[in-house]
Amino acid sequence: MQPTVIAPSILSANFARLGEEVDRVLAAGADWVHFDVMDNHYVPNLTIGPMVCEALRKHGVAAPIDVHLMVEPVDRIVPDFAKAGASLISFHPEASAHVHRTVQLIKAHGCQAGLVLNPATPVEALEWVLEDLDLVLLMSVNPGFGGQAFIPSALAKLRRVREMIDRSGKPIRLEIDGGVKADNIGQIAAAGADTFVAGSAIFNAPDYAEVIYRMKAAVAAARG
Amino acid sequence: MQPTVIAPSILSANFARLGEEVDRVLAAGADWVHFDVMDNHYVPNLTIGPMVCEALRKHGVAAPIDVHLMVEPVDRIVPDFAKAGASLISFHPEASAHVHRTVQLIKAHGCQAGLVLNPATPVEALEWVLEDLDLVLLMSVNPGFGGQAFIPSALAKLRRVREMIDRSGKPIRLEIDGGVKADNIGQIAAAGADTFVAGSAIFNAPDYAEVIYRMKAAVAAARG
Amino acid sequence: MQPTVIAPSILSANFARLGEEVDRVLAAGADWVHFDVMDNHYVPNLTIGPMVCEALRKHGVAAPIDVHLMVEPVDRIVPDFAKAGASLISFHPEASAHVHRTVQLIKAHGCQAGLVLNPATPVEALEWVLEDLDLVLLMSVNPGFGGQAFIPSALAKLRRVREMIDRSGKPIRLEIDGGVKADNIGQIAAAGADTFVAGSAIFNAPDYAEVIYRMKAAVAAARG
Amino acid sequence: MQPTVIAPSILSANFARLGEEVDRVLAAGADWVHFDVMDNHYVPNLTIGPMVCEALRKHGVAAPIDVHLMVEPVDRIVPDFAKAGASLISFHPEASAHVHRTVQLIKAHGCQAGLVLNPATPVEALEWVLEDLDLVLLMSVNPGFGGQAFIPSALAKLRRVREMIDRSGKPIRLEIDGGVKADNIGQIAAAGADTFVAGSAIFNAPDYAEVIYRMKAAVAAARG
Amino acid sequence: MQPTVIAPSILSANFARLGEEVDRVLAAGADWVHFDVMDNHYVPNLTIGPMVCEALRKHGVAAPIDVHLMVEPVDRIVPDFAKAGASLISFHPEASAHVHRTVQLIKAHGCQAGLVLNPATPVEALEWVLEDLDLVLLMSVNPGFGGQAFIPSALAKLRRVREMIDRSGKPIRLEIDGGVKADNIGQIAAAGADTFVAGSAIFNAPDYAEVIYRMKAAVAAARG
Amino acid sequence: MQPTVIAPSILSANFARLGEEVDRVLAAGADWVHFDVMDNHYVPNLTIGPMVCEALRKHGVAAPIDVHLMVEPVDRIVPDFAKAGASLISFHPEASAHVHRTVQLIKAHGCQAGLVLNPATPVEALEWVLEDLDLVLLMSVNPGFGGQAFIPSALAKLRRVREMIDRSGKPIRLEIDGGVKADNIGQIAAAGADTFVAGSAIFNAPDYAEVIYRMKAAVAAARG
Repeated sequence: MQPTVIAPSILSANFARLGEEVDRVLAAGADWVHFDVMDNHYVPNLTIGPMVCEALRKHGVAAPIDVHLMVEPVDRIVPDFAKAGASLISFHPEASAHVHRTVQLIKAHGCQAGLVLNPATPVEALEWVLEDLDLVLLMSVNPGFGGQAFIPSALAKLRRVREMIDRSGKPIRLEIDGGVKADNIGQIAAAGADTFVAGSAIFNAPDYAEVIYRMKAAVAAARG
Repeated sequence: MQPTVIAPSILSANFARLGEEVDRVLAAGADWVHFDVMDNHYVPNLTIGPMVCEALRKHGVAAPIDVHLMVEPVDRIVPDFAKAGASLISFHPEASAHVHRTVQLIKAHGCQAGLVLNPATPVEALEWVLEDLDLVLLMSVNPGFGGQAFIPSALAKLRRVREMIDRSGKPIRLEIDGGVKADNIGQIAAAGADTFVAGSAIFNAPDYAEVIYRMKAAVAAARG
Repeated sequence: MQPTVIAPSILSANFARLGEEVDRVLAAGADWVHFDVMDNHYVPNLTIGPMVCEALRKHGVAAPIDVHLMVEPVDRIVPDFAKAGASLISFHPEASAHVHRTVQLIKAHGCQAGLVLNPATPVEALEWVLEDLDLVLLMSVNPGFGGQAFIPSALAKLRRVREMIDRSGKPIRLEIDGGVKADNIGQIAAAGADTFVAGSAIFNAPDYAEVIYRMKAAVAAARG
Repeated sequence: MQPTVIAPSILSANFARLGEEVDRVLAAGADWVHFDVMDNHYVPNLTIGPMVCEALRKHGVAAPIDVHLMVEPVDRIVPDFAKAGASLISFHPEASAHVHRTVQLIKAHGCQAGLVLNPATPVEALEWVLEDLDLVLLMSVNPGFGGQAFIPSALAKLRRVREMIDRSGKPIRLEIDGGVKADNIGQIAAAGADTFVAGSAIFNAPDYAEVIYRMKAAVAAARG
Repeated sequence: MQPTVIAPSILSANFARLGEEVDRVLAAGADWVHFDVMDNHYVPNLTIGPMVCEALRKHGVAAPIDVHLMVEPVDRIVPDFAKAGASLISFHPEASAHVHRTVQLIKAHGCQAGLVLNPATPVEALEWVLEDLDLVLLMSVNPGFGGQAFIPSALAKLRRVREMIDRSGKPIRLEIDGGVKADNIGQIAAAGADTFVAGSAIFNAPDYAEVIYRMKAAVAAARG
Repeated sequence: MQPTVIAPSILSANFARLGEEVDRVLAAGADWVHFDVMDNHYVPNLTIGPMVCEALRKHGVAAPIDVHLMVEPVDRIVPDFAKAGASLISFHPEASAHVHRTVQLIKAHGCQAGLVLNPATPVEALEWVLEDLDLVLLMSVNPGFGGQAFIPSALAKLRRVREMIDRSGKPIRLEIDGGVKADNIGQIAAAGADTFVAGSAIFNAPDYAEVIYRMKAAVAAARG
């Protein structure tokens, strides 16, 4: 069983003092930095690119940076993020005609590779490439659109993908992103997730450490 | 004659502490904040989007924010930047099939509108829309690619567009971006520019105020 | 069990007097108006858009208007059709990278939502979004191309999707479009369809009421 | 000098009884039927395609049908419109990488060919293909967007293109579209237009004949 | 059981004397000519088009030419290859929104039709169109990228598709492309393939006949 | 004045024995090998890519290879052709949003750079980048479409571009492609061309040397 990871999404942080925000959330117990990249094509929003990732590394961030590419096409920007200090790079199968190739490209640049499934994307998209992955990320909201609640069918999908991962016998992480909060994270963990992205639930809280502590406790209770 | 404006490009600033960087450069005499938006489609790079602009406004930045959209298509993201606090929004005519409409859209959202010409783009692209513009931005390097020097033909192009603006009788700014430094800015001003983007020339300098002072002095000498 | 619906496709009607044609076919017993939208991108044809839908509502058409979007991308045109009076809006999963989001968008604009499967599209595309749908439309010809006969494998596909819908326990309609005629509609109904699009079979008949009557009788016999 | 043509845009007609509307407007003195095709790609709207054109011909419309393609790409749909009965087909140079070829394609299908300039499009786009054209259409609003007034710079552009046409010595029509009304049409004719598209100014008037009469009178006065 | 076919990929031949190369490899026992078409869009490479195919037919090549289209979109180029002498035309389901239609188009032009699955593409893409196919091609490397080894998961995928084909009862060929050599072809045949593409393994060998003989012997041993 | 160059287009050669064809045409007096690359996107045809260029170099072709890219986008394939042995690489300004950058990219890879104007493309597209070019290619037919005659307006365009080149004072070649034959080449040379592409006029002739000789004689007479 993979150790639990809490990965705050810096889209909810204050971009005017991002280094400090990241330092604080890591000091508060966060494990990874989740980095959401939108290109105004795959999703209707444009966020942050490799330069911001590189700035975090130069600032001294040592934790894993978990880059979620909501971009299309994917391959051209992979080397840029690898060079900028990304640890993991995940992408959407709809955004690359050559999913297996993109996974190899990410690994060839020294990063771990993940595949992201949108709420309606069939799990069959994972089948023939699962064993090459380091991480599967299930979206429990639609990426690129704000103000959404956790989509309930994501729990059944987590259970299905958990079975696929367990059957493979590989140490593949199962990450969830969208509407994750301290009061539903236990249920999500029970469905099979081990890696949890949270944005406003952490960065809008008065005390980052307190909410991360409650999240980890709820996950620990659920994972037994 | 428009007053001289120095607009440091924050692409060269430290993104880990962007608010502080912008505060410092404005305190050092900069007039505008130049904000370069790349979408990995119009140019092969992805930088920063509306959230970062909004963060600067929330941080307290009061100076004009001069947004240069290197994105395609243009229209969808205009309202987002207007809402995020942009003062001027400029775009490339190649990136919008409806240039006149995009200019009106920017103005309808309460911003000033600019058109940007790449090094090889004909000045004829300005002719029928010039009087609706608040700003013309001439690129003296190719946007989206690093490590380039000022392209010499930009001087002749500045002179040509300066004539067009003067003939229109409208208070349209003439901005230049690419390879501008304290030691060539006088020559550039003499060719007709009144608004100057500079990135590394300012942010890599040990003393922002000193370099901005030298730039303004050189421009003042040239503009007479 | 959903009541049977006959939905004549107005692509086969006379566009020079569309209001009268629609009045006549509804008076002849048709239940819905089926409205085929093609954009010359998702399919190689361009048909009719929101203005024509709105004209039917202004003309006094009160029956449900069942809009089938053969367009890509989908989201931009959804609000236009909702405003123009559409009752249901269906789209193809290949045409939207964010299928779950598009379904929510249609509902947020007050319409019912459907997903359309091309003849070769896997039924797995329905799995994680089925319970959010009001309608599944199976194509038994290829959309956007004329002169095709009913594709026989559509019967097995209807049976498979009928099982999925029944298992969900939700009141989701199962619609079929392509090559439906009075002499095969019974067999199609027996395979699980409850909603039937027909174009030339109705509009090319001398007596709309007679053919609709025969269709409904054959469906009633088949559905028991 | 080309005889004056008034070409009502059927986008402003009632689509529920289009044949009757077109009959009435032609009986009221209109010369051509202007047919605006939008594909939701070149412009953000989708209107009507070849089937509607064909229905008008089958309905008995004998007047020239003047098709304005606001679509991208252009070539695929040209044969469809020729077959559907189009008399003239015009397109935007931005929408075809092979403008000269598209002009030949239209002619090879037995139609007259026109090029359309958006408000900001340089007239240089006409230079090397002008002599092959039957018509130049200048947009005095932005195509595909509603509720716009006549853009004043279109008058100067008309004068410039009128000179180019006169210099060529060819019988090329000069058409204008956007914000044309009985009270500005004289001024527009004086600037060089001979062919006038009007939509709501005609179809929203209580008496089509009266407004067309006033338009023609104003043009006659202006053209001398 | 389909007879074994060895199909050398001419991408590995000498393009300066292609006719002679093809004559030699056919004389050495090859059954088909495998013809890889890349368009620099579906894959990041551009190879050869219909003119080269036609030149081989004019040169006198009588063997089946097995065209693998790594292009997007697909439909426009199908008639060109049919006219140029292609015997079979295969394409990727990701590259055509209308897979069933494209299969019919290929057949309507007198060729046999195949569907190609990339290493990560789900086999569900075959389900509803399998019975219309003459050939399924599984990629055991990523198309369009050089220097790759046989991807081991292709063996399990071959077994799965072999079952689907056998269940259909249709004479559908199962072809494999990527990293096929004399020393692994037996294992590949045992997994269900009957048609084998090989490039450098044949064209880089000193004696084409010897390597084709060894391949056929290994397949015969494996297929029993 | 640049020496005259005859550049046979190998699209008209026999692809089954391309090496031999190129050897023969060079022995017959041709100066360059003209290499037409089409990608089925910028033009509706797909021809030959870098592998074929490389095969010619390996075959021993030492003459300049003059690559005309009818592809979009341009930049990705430039390094491939440079590596494959191209001497000059020309592209269309419509196909690259960053024309100045693409010119620099070609030169950075050790090749000479050219810009190609379609029959309707304004010469203003050359103005700001002309001095960076080694060659301007004017199309006197539409690229990518067969069976066309020399477009007469190309003569006036040649004269205009000849003036621009002469005014620049740079050794920039002026090439013409489309419908060039022995009986019109003198007139074309008189209009300012110094480099002549010919396809079927050479490769369909019984004696390559004879036709090249007549072409050179006609050019010499015209250029004085």
